[in-house]
Amino acid sequence: MLARVQASFDRQAMMTTLGVEVIAVEPGRVEMSLRHNDRFTQQHGFLHAGAVASVLDTACGYAAYSVMPPESAVLTATYTINLLAPAAGERFTITGEVVRSGRTLVVCRGEAFADGDERPFAVMQATMTTLVNRPGISG
Amino acid sequence: MLARVQASFDRQAMMTTLGVEVIAVEPGRVEMSLRHNDRFTQQHGFLHAGAVASVLDTACGYAAYSVMPPESAVLTATYTINLLAPAAGERFTITGEVVRSGRTLVVCRGEAFADGDERPFAVMQATMTTLVNRPGISG
Amino acid sequence: MLARVQASFDRQAMMTTLGVEVIAVEPGRVEMSLRHNDRFTQQHGFLHAGAVASVLDTACGYAAYSVMPPESAVLTATYTINLLAPAAGERFTITGEVVRSGRTLVVCRGEAFADGDERPFAVMQATMTTLVNRPGISG
Amino acid sequence: MLARVQASFDRQAMMTTLGVEVIAVEPGRVEMSLRHNDRFTQQHGFLHAGAVASVLDTACGYAAYSVMPPESAVLTATYTINLLAPAAGERFTITGEVVRSGRTLVVCRGEAFADGDERPFAVMQATMTTLVNRPGISG
Repeated sequence: MLARVQASFDRQAMMTTLGVEVIAVEPGRVEMSLRHNDRFTQQHGFLHAGAVASVLDTACGYAAYSVMPPESAVLTATYTINLLAPAAGERFTITGEVVRSGRTLVVCRGEAFADGDERPFAVMQATMTTLVNRPGISG
Repeated sequence: MLARVQASFDRQAMMTTLGVEVIAVEPGRVEMSLRHNDRFTQQHGFLHAGAVASVLDTACGYAAYSVMPPESAVLTATYTINLLAPAAGERFTITGEVVRSGRTLVVCRGEAFADGDERPFAVMQATMTTLVNRPGISG
Repeated sequence: MLARVQASFDRQAMMTTLGVEVIAVEPGRVEMSLRHNDRFTQQHGFLHAGAVASVLDTACGYAAYSVMPPESAVLTATYTINLLAPAAGERFTITGEVVRSGRTLVVCRGEAFADGDERPFAVMQATMTTLVNRPGISG
Repeated sequence: MLARVQASFDRQAMMTTLGVEVIAVEPGRVEMSLRHNDRFTQQHGFLHAGAVASVLDTACGYAAYSVMPPESAVLTATYTINLLAPAAGERFTITGEVVRSGRTLVVCRGEAFADGDERPFAVMQATMTTLVNRPGISG
């Protein structure tokens, strides 16, 4: 399972471009990290919400994928993100975990933390879809 | 107003990095465009939802900003994105428009279209906050 | 199709209890109405967001159901509601319409209007699931 | 604070109509309970999502209110609810808790449990607004 997650993650060019690292993967939970980068900021100099959302989405997606049957692929159906404070910091820890998985939908929650802060600066509630037997779509 | 939006947009390094262009700005409505780029893809080779969400968020943000008092700054409080189909195509048109603006919150809707498709492949419902008189925060 | 929607609606005791009426049903779009009722208010005397959300959810659900195959059942997977102003008024018009329907998920948007106001006081973005061949579940 | 929450709750006719009880209130966390009632069902005989959403919304609202200054009033700006399974059961426990509170917005998470189930059948991510000094609006 870990190998499947890592292999799929490695194919996400967006994650490479953002410089995201996979920190931990266990069944139903994924942790990633992201560093501040001036190329991905918004107008006030903080990391753009879109960069944070990309990683939260990916963390939730792989948390869901980690509990899906091996032959599945995962797609994001929808998510809601709340930005509780600006993404101010040097290093961001981003987690995704499964709340409950159903036949085709897996619901996850994600949290983003700046540096050593114990309170998240962003939270996500995401709905992932399990795809099975779609030609050309895997991972 | 147009100058304020463009000036703030130009300070979003994330938009430059993604190669986003402002196509049109009018009070309460903003249109942007984005091209497919292999550096921002997900594991199936389509544009990552995070790239699409970043531009939808920015389009909604500036739609809101365009109806705020000149001395305000805009921040995203929360948004929900639905991904209706993969971001398959060469050129994406992304719109944001104000549904209703209140004292501190402005609610917007965004839509993303691939190439000439008239049906959106992604839709957003976003809540923007008006910041007034926050030292160091403008635009 | 109209008969299927009406038959399913008639089985929703919640709609009878709230006094909701179906005003119009066409493929992909449903309109309902709701009256102010002191039994369903929040602490400031306005209609409770939960009453409005119930009807928006149902309107979106039947908009989705109206484009599903006849043997399907519809369930709400997730929705986001924005409350743009209090539900102040006597009679509320609530619409749901399909944005795009996929293999198992149908995404809808809903709007709620008070009396003659042309601006919605609440908007919803909803994701409906198509259920097929689930014993004991229809409509 | 407990008295303020209870007093405001008692003014929500919707909660009386649904038969909701306040089980516990502490700073930043509220727990409520709701019983199955045939008057509030959807078309398959389960409790309508709108009834569950109403109580989740109220639980999140009072969790937020419990950490606001005494002279504030609370309004729901937006929430996202995921329905992970039908509301099947006799007695439902519904919790709301504050994730983080800012100057005017308080973000909360809610969970709904059926009977003795330890996994939630519904989860909410909600954004509450603090109102200060609005004539005629308190609680």
